[in-house]
Amino acid sequence: MKKPALDLKAVIMAGGSGTRFWPLSRRRRPKQFLPIAGASTMIRETLERVLPLIPARDVYTVAGARHTASIRRLLPELPPANVLVEPAARNTAPSILLATAVVHRRNPEAVVAVLASDHLIRDRKAFLRQLQAAARTAARREGLVTFGIPPTFPSTGYGYIRFEKDAAFVSAGQTFHPAVEFKEKPALAQARAFLASGDYLWNSGMFLWRPSVFAHKLEEHAPDFFRFWVRILDALKGRSAARLKAVFRDIPALSIDYALMEKAKGTVVLRGDFGWSDVGAWSSLFEVWPADASGNAVQGDVLALSASGNLLHNPGRFTALVGVRDLIVVNTPDALLICAKDQDQRVKEVLDHLARAGRVKPL
Amino acid sequence: MKKPALDLKAVIMAGGSGTRFWPLSRRRRPKQFLPIAGASTMIRETLERVLPLIPARDVYTVAGARHTASIRRLLPELPPANVLVEPAARNTAPSILLATAVVHRRNPEAVVAVLASDHLIRDRKAFLRQLQAAARTAARREGLVTFGIPPTFPSTGYGYIRFEKDAAFVSAGQTFHPAVEFKEKPALAQARAFLASGDYLWNSGMFLWRPSVFAHKLEEHAPDFFRFWVRILDALKGRSAARLKAVFRDIPALSIDYALMEKAKGTVVLRGDFGWSDVGAWSSLFEVWPADASGNAVQGDVLALSASGNLLHNPGRFTALVGVRDLIVVNTPDALLICAKDQDQRVKEVLDHLARAGRVKPL
Repeated sequence: MKKPALDLKAVIMAGGSGTRFWPLSRRRRPKQFLPIAGASTMIRETLERVLPLIPARDVYTVAGARHTASIRRLLPELPPANVLVEPAARNTAPSILLATAVVHRRNPEAVVAVLASDHLIRDRKAFLRQLQAAARTAARREGLVTFGIPPTFPSTGYGYIRFEKDAAFVSAGQTFHPAVEFKEKPALAQARAFLASGDYLWNSGMFLWRPSVFAHKLEEHAPDFFRFWVRILDALKGRSAARLKAVFRDIPALSIDYALMEKAKGTVVLRGDFGWSDVGAWSSLFEVWPADASGNAVQGDVLALSASGNLLHNPGRFTALVGVRDLIVVNTPDALLICAKDQDQRVKEVLDHLARAGRVKPL
Repeated sequence: MKKPALDLKAVIMAGGSGTRFWPLSRRRRPKQFLPIAGASTMIRETLERVLPLIPARDVYTVAGARHTASIRRLLPELPPANVLVEPAARNTAPSILLATAVVHRRNPEAVVAVLASDHLIRDRKAFLRQLQAAARTAARREGLVTFGIPPTFPSTGYGYIRFEKDAAFVSAGQTFHPAVEFKEKPALAQARAFLASGDYLWNSGMFLWRPSVFAHKLEEHAPDFFRFWVRILDALKGRSAARLKAVFRDIPALSIDYALMEKAKGTVVLRGDFGWSDVGAWSSLFEVWPADASGNAVQGDVLALSASGNLLHNPGRFTALVGVRDLIVVNTPDALLICAKDQDQRVKEVLDHLARAGRVKPL
């Protein structure tokens, strides 16, 4: 059987505000624009990861106007028109509607792969192999396709996908399952039950579909959003920034999970086995950065004396860690964070405090 | 009784290498040249403290040549000739012999007050009152005079002076005691016994004597050092830098405690009640810097969330402390120290490590 030609487009979601890596990340320099998990910025790594499969002319980004310059600078090979600007930050559903609509106008039967700009994928080859299989599957099915990640701990920070274990089918060389249910971030007890059952995968936030199928699912299962889909297509057709802005003013600021994935029927999920991490907070880097024998994940010029389990980012300066453990230490030219390893979610409180104090820096 | 005219000279010992406040202190910028415990540098505060009693022309400093520029800059009112240069760093005995000999050549019956350049004295008025009484006592006695500090904990970092409790005498309005024995830094058990007995004071390192008495005590109790005293006087008389250098090459590098105080008879001690601290390590600043309700002794722009008992020095930058306790955090343009509060003595290990690695910076 001859493989059908695959018109695959990538949409890289680059609008994240990236508060969780403060003080390295800032309002204007969120995580995706930082080399958090490798030598290049996360968005650059995202692009380079897909280039063997998708030429740059078929890669889109979507983010607010304040990030356009960063994206153009970091991804110079993208056609300027592919750097989509969302008129306002309204969560993921509006951005994804916009990007899918842009592709729809070029080819409603192309396959759109929605990718995050700030996730870590350790095994590029496995990812490309699975991405291609997912794309081929999306090209031939009348349903949405998504990546689920085998959970390794009862995370309360991810959404979950319940899948039908006994209804596997092989497509393009990979094993897919029907997705039965999308669950929002659970409480810990529920997360533990999900993990124990073996029936759940983490929702990676990576999706594939043809714009025609996406539109059909919206119309059928999310009619409220279908109205906005029609308005977006109309604004794009008329090249009207004002009308697009009006849509983004009116559209509910919801995630695509809530707006569509939880409701759509016929979605299938592929278990992603490519070393995925959403690198959601400083402590996640303990599994990413190389560590010394005492579990110090440190970069650069460091002396650790009786110090263990610390994460340190202090480029260009010497650091001495003496008798301390389980700390996250991040030093930047205008801000220093010293945080207990198990409290890194509270970085957001620091930012809230700065914002409430009316401060511009170091935000 | 008319008070005799008092020709009082101060000798400020400024040769300390100040490794214990790294990374703020450096080889060329030891503690005495830093504003560690107040708005001014410690050496500047030392001078200003005595100026109401001793005019600048009667204040001397003694330190190595590498510190001359700092001293001249920080204490511009001193006559340049009063900034004594020790040809080599050979512990305190050689420096004190040199300074006392310089005064001896001007007036063997003047009173020399040997003061540290890097100690904190909270109550200036009480200090001046007691300094004057100690000076008047030194002016009329044929023995050495020293300040002892009432111990508040069983320190193993100070020397101790055993004093004769029941042989007090009042002189110049203050109560003096015979000093029975000088003890070097004790082990903890011994320090506890010293504290419990009530017979011991900390050795403050501040002494007073007339050069004539000092010379006599050397001759009688420390004849080895008396030889060098004669050679120093000779070198000064001949204005021979080469001969002075030769003395400093030959003289044992000992502390004045070991060289003379432990041996001299007839020494008296005055209990110093002026809020003294030698500010010997970062953790000593917990008692000096103002602290918040959670015991964080922090300076500048700091947010503490569930953080307690931390000491922070990070000028010019915002700092967030989240869920951490009992840390010493010191940030400088080229080095960052994160140290457990109870391990601040190990800062020296950091410096040893850097030196062994052949590094020039950040030392």
